[in-house]
Amino acid sequence: MKAVIILSGGADSSTLGYLLKSKGYNELICVTYNYGQKQVKEIESAKIIAQKLNAIHHIIDVTFMKQFLKGSGLTDDSIEVPHGAYTKENMSVTVVPNRNTMLLSIAWSIACVENADVLAYGAQCGDHYLYPDTRPDYFNAMNLALRLGTEDCRKNNLELIAPLLHKSKAEVITLGTELGVPFEETWSCYDGGEVHCGKCGACQSRADGFKTANIIDPTIYTHCL
Amino acid sequence: MKAVIILSGGADSSTLGYLLKSKGYNELICVTYNYGQKQVKEIESAKIIAQKLNAIHHIIDVTFMKQFLKGSGLTDDSIEVPHGAYTKENMSVTVVPNRNTMLLSIAWSIACVENADVLAYGAQCGDHYLYPDTRPDYFNAMNLALRLGTEDCRKNNLELIAPLLHKSKAEVITLGTELGVPFEETWSCYDGGEVHCGKCGACQSRADGFKTANIIDPTIYTHCL
Repeated sequence: MKAVIILSGGADSSTLGYLLKSKGYNELICVTYNYGQKQVKEIESAKIIAQKLNAIHHIIDVTFMKQFLKGSGLTDDSIEVPHGAYTKENMSVTVVPNRNTMLLSIAWSIACVENADVLAYGAQCGDHYLYPDTRPDYFNAMNLALRLGTEDCRKNNLELIAPLLHKSKAEVITLGTELGVPFEETWSCYDGGEVHCGKCGACQSRADGFKTANIIDPTIYTHCL
Repeated sequence: MKAVIILSGGADSSTLGYLLKSKGYNELICVTYNYGQKQVKEIESAKIIAQKLNAIHHIIDVTFMKQFLKGSGLTDDSIEVPHGAYTKENMSVTVVPNRNTMLLSIAWSIACVENADVLAYGAQCGDHYLYPDTRPDYFNAMNLALRLGTEDCRKNNLELIAPLLHKSKAEVITLGTELGVPFEETWSCYDGGEVHCGKCGACQSRADGFKTANIIDPTIYTHCL
């Protein structure tokens, strides 16, 4: 069985890769996006995880997003990444509108070319209400649109799956630990430092996940949590 | 009213631009994709049409598609564009799986950033059964997915519209002629020549459209039709 996985190099998508491998997907193709984000360390982490999974790894250049998405803290160097836990106010800076739909569409195209059985992504609907594109309703609509849009171009009965959609961060950390995910190699931080900043929303969510799961966090943070 | 239009520079999307202008959309933003296609003349045509429409024009580099889409006659220089009218066999060479979904997703993101009222595209469901992503079912599913995926990121009640979906090529040519579309400036040919080849499926569809509409075709074709 063949799976295409959107692998950011973070804790969730790395757990997703290990989960699929454990479910019998013996051909894995990882897709990582370079969209000009500040956290280039993320891509290095993705390379390590893909290698450990014995997966084919495509790094797709989507820096075109920089052309029209001014004003996003993730791609615009002049805007500072917000610190502190996710709130409606500070998360809006990290939202590129429709980003997940763009990234899913590209990965779906690759999955068609590769005759994969599933396209997997690691979204969690969780508690991040500012990311509407991680909600189950969206996920179902997107699966339908992707399938209809490639009805006669696919050899396989390709499906979009999001096995972590209803899991909390702590549950993902627990699952990943059971599956042997090398979390010390994964990268979550939104800032562009050498080690995790410990201040941005992604770092706080990561640290909280380990804490709630009662699992030792192997991450080095600049800012003590 | 503000509209974002996917403008390829062909007869359909140019007619779409003139149609929206006639419907009272006084702020037009045209989006043209450079995805490494052979027909660069198409982009030159799009520039001329956008200028005539007094529109803002974004040319978005999506050449990342070349990275993974080997084997498509449209982007791979080693594969020849098929000649003759559209058939199931020769059209498969011109199909990049999921292309329309990728292009719609990107344009939707721009439409969100621009606070547009509509995203318009010039698809016709017509008779091209190998392009599943121009069918009404797909269109409705995609509209829903795009809206759900950006539910809280948009200021406007953005809608995806495809006013030409149920029109034949001849009806589009007739409509465009009534609206004053300068068809001599538009470009349809899939081949990379200086003038329309007259042999590829797009040329044949264009020529047939003018013929059926009983309107003089201003296009210069290398190959007599």
